[in-house]
Amino acid sequence: MKKRRVLKTPDLKSSTMTYNFRNDYAEGAHPRILRKLMETNLTQQPGYGEDDYCLQAAALIRRHLGNADAVVHFLSGGTQTNLIVISSLLRTHEAVISAASGHIATHETGAIEATGHKVITLDSPDGKLNPESILKTLRRYSSLRPHVVKPRMVYISDATEMGTIYTRTELEDISACCKSMDVHLFLDGARLAQALAAENNDLRLEDISRLTDVFYIGGTKSGALMGEALVFNSPELAKDFDYTLKQKGAMLAKGRLLGIQFLELLTDDLYLTLAAHADRMAMKIARAVRQAGYTFLTESTTNQIFPVLPKTLIDRLSEKYLFYVWKEIDDSQAAVRLITSWATPEAAVDSFIRDLETLG
Amino acid sequence: MKKRRVLKTPDLKSSTMTYNFRNDYAEGAHPRILRKLMETNLTQQPGYGEDDYCLQAAALIRRHLGNADAVVHFLSGGTQTNLIVISSLLRTHEAVISAASGHIATHETGAIEATGHKVITLDSPDGKLNPESILKTLRRYSSLRPHVVKPRMVYISDATEMGTIYTRTELEDISACCKSMDVHLFLDGARLAQALAAENNDLRLEDISRLTDVFYIGGTKSGALMGEALVFNSPELAKDFDYTLKQKGAMLAKGRLLGIQFLELLTDDLYLTLAAHADRMAMKIARAVRQAGYTFLTESTTNQIFPVLPKTLIDRLSEKYLFYVWKEIDDSQAAVRLITSWATPEAAVDSFIRDLETLG
Amino acid sequence: MKKRRVLKTPDLKSSTMTYNFRNDYAEGAHPRILRKLMETNLTQQPGYGEDDYCLQAAALIRRHLGNADAVVHFLSGGTQTNLIVISSLLRTHEAVISAASGHIATHETGAIEATGHKVITLDSPDGKLNPESILKTLRRYSSLRPHVVKPRMVYISDATEMGTIYTRTELEDISACCKSMDVHLFLDGARLAQALAAENNDLRLEDISRLTDVFYIGGTKSGALMGEALVFNSPELAKDFDYTLKQKGAMLAKGRLLGIQFLELLTDDLYLTLAAHADRMAMKIARAVRQAGYTFLTESTTNQIFPVLPKTLIDRLSEKYLFYVWKEIDDSQAAVRLITSWATPEAAVDSFIRDLETLG
Amino acid sequence: MKKRRVLKTPDLKSSTMTYNFRNDYAEGAHPRILRKLMETNLTQQPGYGEDDYCLQAAALIRRHLGNADAVVHFLSGGTQTNLIVISSLLRTHEAVISAASGHIATHETGAIEATGHKVITLDSPDGKLNPESILKTLRRYSSLRPHVVKPRMVYISDATEMGTIYTRTELEDISACCKSMDVHLFLDGARLAQALAAENNDLRLEDISRLTDVFYIGGTKSGALMGEALVFNSPELAKDFDYTLKQKGAMLAKGRLLGIQFLELLTDDLYLTLAAHADRMAMKIARAVRQAGYTFLTESTTNQIFPVLPKTLIDRLSEKYLFYVWKEIDDSQAAVRLITSWATPEAAVDSFIRDLETLG
Repeated sequence: MKKRRVLKTPDLKSSTMTYNFRNDYAEGAHPRILRKLMETNLTQQPGYGEDDYCLQAAALIRRHLGNADAVVHFLSGGTQTNLIVISSLLRTHEAVISAASGHIATHETGAIEATGHKVITLDSPDGKLNPESILKTLRRYSSLRPHVVKPRMVYISDATEMGTIYTRTELEDISACCKSMDVHLFLDGARLAQALAAENNDLRLEDISRLTDVFYIGGTKSGALMGEALVFNSPELAKDFDYTLKQKGAMLAKGRLLGIQFLELLTDDLYLTLAAHADRMAMKIARAVRQAGYTFLTESTTNQIFPVLPKTLIDRLSEKYLFYVWKEIDDSQAAVRLITSWATPEAAVDSFIRDLETLG
Repeated sequence: MKKRRVLKTPDLKSSTMTYNFRNDYAEGAHPRILRKLMETNLTQQPGYGEDDYCLQAAALIRRHLGNADAVVHFLSGGTQTNLIVISSLLRTHEAVISAASGHIATHETGAIEATGHKVITLDSPDGKLNPESILKTLRRYSSLRPHVVKPRMVYISDATEMGTIYTRTELEDISACCKSMDVHLFLDGARLAQALAAENNDLRLEDISRLTDVFYIGGTKSGALMGEALVFNSPELAKDFDYTLKQKGAMLAKGRLLGIQFLELLTDDLYLTLAAHADRMAMKIARAVRQAGYTFLTESTTNQIFPVLPKTLIDRLSEKYLFYVWKEIDDSQAAVRLITSWATPEAAVDSFIRDLETLG
Repeated sequence: MKKRRVLKTPDLKSSTMTYNFRNDYAEGAHPRILRKLMETNLTQQPGYGEDDYCLQAAALIRRHLGNADAVVHFLSGGTQTNLIVISSLLRTHEAVISAASGHIATHETGAIEATGHKVITLDSPDGKLNPESILKTLRRYSSLRPHVVKPRMVYISDATEMGTIYTRTELEDISACCKSMDVHLFLDGARLAQALAAENNDLRLEDISRLTDVFYIGGTKSGALMGEALVFNSPELAKDFDYTLKQKGAMLAKGRLLGIQFLELLTDDLYLTLAAHADRMAMKIARAVRQAGYTFLTESTTNQIFPVLPKTLIDRLSEKYLFYVWKEIDDSQAAVRLITSWATPEAAVDSFIRDLETLG
Repeated sequence: MKKRRVLKTPDLKSSTMTYNFRNDYAEGAHPRILRKLMETNLTQQPGYGEDDYCLQAAALIRRHLGNADAVVHFLSGGTQTNLIVISSLLRTHEAVISAASGHIATHETGAIEATGHKVITLDSPDGKLNPESILKTLRRYSSLRPHVVKPRMVYISDATEMGTIYTRTELEDISACCKSMDVHLFLDGARLAQALAAENNDLRLEDISRLTDVFYIGGTKSGALMGEALVFNSPELAKDFDYTLKQKGAMLAKGRLLGIQFLELLTDDLYLTLAAHADRMAMKIARAVRQAGYTFLTESTTNQIFPVLPKTLIDRLSEKYLFYVWKEIDDSQAAVRLITSWATPEAAVDSFIRDLETLG
């Protein structure tokens, strides 16, 4: 995510500030997670992800996916997961295709290139890829062999960095395209819960497991202190993945910290309940934006929205709320980014809506 | 650490098992840390290590070091810290010198090499380096230029992987050697608290800050859920380190998780209190081992000890306790490794000692 | 260079084929070079670039540059030189800025990314960069720190991959911009001789040495069997470069092979004489193209030109000449790329011109 | 090769110096090669190794190997070949096993580590590996998984860096061991011709092709200006190798330079004739050394030998000949390294022998 600041960054602690809509990781964890950490604290457990909680959480995920062969690992964050998955699966001359707005292309300090692999970016205003542009890219690169890299993986995000989500048909088409071209399909699910909880979503976890080679269920942005649950739906791709985890510094000695959190998030579908709240809060603001006559940069249905607002209004709102100005539209308007989370109080949302209506 | 198993790995949960002396990360965190996480949970904070807790913990560390210019970052684990520090400070053709038993040489799945750098290992039964062997290595490599790598960093651990610690004089000598040869000195402090708390220790944090270029205070093995507090004593070496943190997937969105833990560990020197307990438990066992007439592989004064025991005794002890057989000595004896932690109950230690005396 | 083929690749050896305008490396070396190899063949010399010929060629280059401090190394090819220079000068989180048509961005199979560094590409129809776009890029990346890479080098080519060249004023402006922003300026001179020999050129080698940090004089495309003469105008940047050369497999045991060739190319300015011929041949074709009423994709003044021709004409010409169709313009027209070299016979050029006029 | 100098490096051009026994790359190429370069110089050819000469040389090699499926590529030097082969075949967490004296472990400036892979070294006084030590290493590493790298390739040299060679039985045993453990076998043949030409050799090229996965026939040290002919005996391992060649800067635009040289070296077995001369010159010295009552560091039968001589004699010889003092034996003796080549005049050898006998 690009950070473009409105004037000077205001201080959340100043008395006039009422809420931070900049990101979905400004709070700690859902209280159930902290309680579970307390309860299990002194049980002695094996290290490095072989503890009971990791094993149970992995089993629970396989059950949710309906895929007994899926291989599950727990990692600490999105950039870490992306760089390890990609460098583990690609040979030195192979590259990954991503939307130009993809997290690996924009917000990871060259993490993928640092492992030796080029990220081939395709323009896409809504943050989504499609089979046509993927195929065209594969063919162009193939025709220039060996003077260019070989695209061997497609990276998509659901929800995307623009708040949009994939339909089942869209994912099926991309999946078929990748299979037919012998290209791995990797889905970044840092906000997968928010995608699954969106009103217009028709994808289930089972579909994602069936249609992708590897994906992850984000915890950091869905109520955990940290953590992503990585799933290899094609077990042969997971071969020796434990080595890579360790080599890249991603294997926690107390892996239980990750297992416990996912065990709790997956129990009673807590992660979906939390994501549904985040989405509902964003959609409530979106409705108000629309009713006030403003438009959006993208048609988001998840917990990050990009209203296009008059700069005068943006200035006034930014005296009370933290958020990023995302993109200048013209002299008088800009798109802002507002993010809600599992922890966003409805009162903060209501306050923002009132201010939007009265300060506009 | 090399893992050599006694027969089949026994199951900690079996009824006869009384305690796991395999490592110092089998439990969760000290309860004060969990309470602090609870208390601060819903405060909104900036991400990526710019939260109040990280800032406060860094300030506290600088105060402990008596070094107002030190730059502090918080990372998740030892391998991660080692690979990021080393790859951040070395140019492509530069290498790091380590004891052959050093963690980076033995137990990190080639993490350093994966960043492009050779680890030059020097034999050292006690796990410590000295100026003579460092100088000899630097001269030999220099004479073979440019057909060999250029050693540009010395990596030491305190406590070492063999349980030994450096004296102030020893560290001063190594430091002077490195300075005179324009070589960075990096101290792996995964068990630094245990070194500082050792009875025979004469090094203080201020000394370490003064004598090394960069070091870290381990949290994972000292009562935290995870985390290492990395300190650049030479601020110019920290230039742009935030980029590298992000690039290697080590920058947690909720960096507060690390800040809060170190803030608590450093308050009232909790980390030293915990380490002193761990050391005391190990030394209690060591005294019993010595009194029973056995010897040691190394003269450890910290929380991991390497008694040389009859194999028959090892077999009997391993029916009740988990530990690694470290090294075969001869047909009838082997060295084992026993590790204690902040959470080791004295009763477990007493039980082990009784069994050592009666089963021997 | 992107290779887009006209129908099936015709065979140079077929009876109807008269000449290959696809590249400037289809022949061996200028005969003077081969003679010099013969003459010096049995003299015993030190290896690894420390032979008399390398030393003499380096001294000759320093004299041409008027820069007694310049450090000169000889490498085998352009991709090799680019990847070694860039990886030697950048820290892990640093990136290089290039025109989107830059060789490192398009035609090196991800060689730069394979060393861990992102290539930031800027659109530029004529293949040249300018201070405005460089500055804008530096500022944008700086504002997003540390979530994006840090641009630390600007890579330009002269002549560019589009056949255009930099004026002295343009290079002075870019140089000043880079100096003021603490960014290295690296000039890819694979076709530097052709740029220097161009009619509209006002840059001398001394200027290039004064205005860039590092650049090279291409041999492969200027009459040598292979080889690029790399010059560090800022000697401090050359520190330890010999290590990197060796590490990347670029240090030839018989470095004399490179030294001898450059010694000969630089004697009596042979390399400029050869480049002038190549340029003159291309410009002769260009004049005919213009007179026949066709336009160009770029305003090249060097040995590669990009005429926009009717597809019907392209089809007919490609029955007798080898060249690449570079870019589709519309349904009836495409741009082709024609390259001439030191070895192109004027008769082949005249024949092509006749066919252009009669087949059009 | 480690370079240990006798006093100050003497200057080859000083009047008292009669010959350089330091290496086998002090001269240019065999005259037949230069003549062939002359003859073919102006023929237009495709670039990047697709020229007629490369194709013919590859076909000739396949015929020599009796392996129609072998895939052949031509590279510029040994370090380059080693790093590209190893990084092309290994996944990120995989490592290569080498004798401690192996070129990749000692004399390549960390080239292999720079591609991300650890070199696991096994002590071996004669420079050779055997199945026992390989198996032991594979088992030890496997037992420590995933905290150590995964050895996936065995690297051997024939002739070794100590002048010794493998027998057919030895190579068959290593080959069977590697196959049974699913580990690639890579043979560095920088001095393969010298091994094949050795009096005690019983290996043929066909054997090497049958018993290894990939190997190369060295040109640089066997009469070429430069070049190694790389052979993949297991074609599936060569998949996409052209990409890696290009990415690492090893694909020469004028690939013909390599093709022409190997075409000539392989015609009438010129390379073997040249190697036989080199070996014979070294063995002539070795016999004289033995007759004079001196011993050797290793039992070399190829063109580099390691006599153990009195230091006083070494001092006297080094006034007239260039060679390296390899290893101190005791206060009065050291081992030196003497290398002969295809170009070593028998007169120089005879002169050295006379001096050995009279100065001793």
